[in-house]
Amino acid sequence: MVKPFLSDRMRGIEKTLLRQINDQADSSCINLGLGEPLFPTPKSILNHLKEKIDDWNLRYSRNEGLQELRELIAENSGLQVTADQICITVGAEEALLSTLMVVINTGDEVLIPDPGFPAYESVVRIAGGVSRNYPLYRENNFSLKYEDVKNNISIKTKAIILNSPNNPTGAIYTSEELVKLAELLEQRGIIAISDEVYRDIYFEERPDSIANYIQNCVVINSLSKSFSMTGWRLGWCITSPELIKPLVNFHQLAVTCAPTISQQIALFALKGFAGEEKLRNIEELKRRRNFSMSCVEKYTDLKYVKPSGTFYLFLDVLSKMPEYGNSLKISLNILSKEKVVTIPGLAFGKGGEGYLRISFASSPEQIEEGIRRIGHFLRSDL
Amino acid sequence: MVKPFLSDRMRGIEKTLLRQINDQADSSCINLGLGEPLFPTPKSILNHLKEKIDDWNLRYSRNEGLQELRELIAENSGLQVTADQICITVGAEEALLSTLMVVINTGDEVLIPDPGFPAYESVVRIAGGVSRNYPLYRENNFSLKYEDVKNNISIKTKAIILNSPNNPTGAIYTSEELVKLAELLEQRGIIAISDEVYRDIYFEERPDSIANYIQNCVVINSLSKSFSMTGWRLGWCITSPELIKPLVNFHQLAVTCAPTISQQIALFALKGFAGEEKLRNIEELKRRRNFSMSCVEKYTDLKYVKPSGTFYLFLDVLSKMPEYGNSLKISLNILSKEKVVTIPGLAFGKGGEGYLRISFASSPEQIEEGIRRIGHFLRSDL
Repeated sequence: MVKPFLSDRMRGIEKTLLRQINDQADSSCINLGLGEPLFPTPKSILNHLKEKIDDWNLRYSRNEGLQELRELIAENSGLQVTADQICITVGAEEALLSTLMVVINTGDEVLIPDPGFPAYESVVRIAGGVSRNYPLYRENNFSLKYEDVKNNISIKTKAIILNSPNNPTGAIYTSEELVKLAELLEQRGIIAISDEVYRDIYFEERPDSIANYIQNCVVINSLSKSFSMTGWRLGWCITSPELIKPLVNFHQLAVTCAPTISQQIALFALKGFAGEEKLRNIEELKRRRNFSMSCVEKYTDLKYVKPSGTFYLFLDVLSKMPEYGNSLKISLNILSKEKVVTIPGLAFGKGGEGYLRISFASSPEQIEEGIRRIGHFLRSDL
Repeated sequence: MVKPFLSDRMRGIEKTLLRQINDQADSSCINLGLGEPLFPTPKSILNHLKEKIDDWNLRYSRNEGLQELRELIAENSGLQVTADQICITVGAEEALLSTLMVVINTGDEVLIPDPGFPAYESVVRIAGGVSRNYPLYRENNFSLKYEDVKNNISIKTKAIILNSPNNPTGAIYTSEELVKLAELLEQRGIIAISDEVYRDIYFEERPDSIANYIQNCVVINSLSKSFSMTGWRLGWCITSPELIKPLVNFHQLAVTCAPTISQQIALFALKGFAGEEKLRNIEELKRRRNFSMSCVEKYTDLKYVKPSGTFYLFLDVLSKMPEYGNSLKISLNILSKEKVVTIPGLAFGKGGEGYLRISFASSPEQIEEGIRRIGHFLRSDL
């Protein structure tokens, strides 16, 4: 007797295009495809760890995480929340999975940004939901417009995922639009899931959060991007007293608890002891943003929208090379001919088509050489 | 407009009774309820970490984990597998979730041991499956009998979870029964999910694994119990080339990757550098098993089956105190009257009813005092 082997929820779920392309890159490539800063874990954090580790209890923490850490996150959040509304998770990814598994039933619709982080669609599908895009238009500098969400709400809409600053465009959603959106969501009983992993990486004004305007909300954040601590797998979510309980129940069954050592480190980092290094990294990212924009202008004639946050530049390539037909072909050709890894905009949804995402979290030398080669590709292709 | 708030899959999912009871315990209690060894992380591991951490790349690893670690696990597994058949997970819990999410469709049946680890039932339910118990009878010393599984297989059975040594009874499944079972499962196209987190904690013969006799199998293991490293959240699963790919896809969307620092540490631990401490801990657990059995005999007249592995003693209490009606009441009374945390057998399924699980991973002083108080409770209740 042979039974269908794979669960329905996993059919069509592949490694994301992001990971597939990064997997194809070898070490001889210039990698502008990375979704993480290349700074090491702050030295002050490693020194603290070496000094204190013998004293730490490194067994299971409570499922929801260390009390002291949750208190600190509550305090720092700027929201009227208590430690009991916080669950420490295995990075933002697990926070997203846990949230969706707890609120989504088969057939529920979840609004996701287009262009947006590719995992949103897959995690919604795994949870049994149906993702529906809300567009972020180039003519709005990829920033969210309340009407574009409104037009995509249906009777089945259960939740919306927001991501400001946005991966891949670097756009920030304005307070004005967030306020209007919050009111609409509250009226319709739609849960706002606010993925704020890039919120500390901004270059002008600090991005606002919809959590300031709505009760029915899950804020997701992590140490990964802001402290360059991706491998530590330390994130959290903040939500209402009603939702936190089932969320912790799911989280327990998914991972038991976040790594205790990472929780200890987070306590140190979020107390501000690594604050200087964090700010220095973000200043450095700002310099690299400006540098990469100047390189694009020097070596290419590509258009882009100046990013307000994140560490990505979203380059309009297809309009210069329409003969390729799509961004994936352009990206693959740049990889094979110029040995530069870029992420095709298509990976972020149809709204990203025509663009390439390049990361300026690489070193200035890599950024310049990578963009120079992209320019070479553009010209050699004429 | 108010929408049903919680997903159906989470209805009825509560914190497990285990965690609820542990949460009730305050620090004045003697805690014989713990599901983890109280040994600290081996010193050699902490020293290695302090020495090497500055050199490690602590960013994201590949989703499936460090190549070198997966190669090592493949080598050590005793199975004919390659590194490509291994995914490093956030402890055994995430390995279990990932496995079930990848193979279970709504309504599929999953056989789980009764008595058995309570999370099995919940994770099966979250994945949309229906759990069905296979009994482990006291008269067989709680060891698995092939017929008792066979009698519970239906046309809907998709998978079976095996756990040897078994939590909470400490029983080991014999090779003879595993061989017969493997043949049956192979015939019926049923996947064997073998939770082997206690496999290194045995007191006589090393437990066998069904993976030696069946292709269609997922082996789950971790550092948590064998190296007393619960908080490091480092587990893995080993499976067929067909199943590993979707499993890694789910794992990516659930947690991105296991904590990189824990993967580095695992590499050290599994190379044998912490082997001495591991063996010393297991020797110590054996002494504590013998000691706790002698305490039970000294202070009580309770019956139990000598555990062959794990660090649990499963005490037959209800037959001595039938007036309480169930093991939960007995456990709660021992907690309130004697300040000793024990886990009611009911927490492990109806097959555990009548028993209390006590852990001998606590210190000898705590074990003796805890059992003395249980004895006092028994006598004072006469």
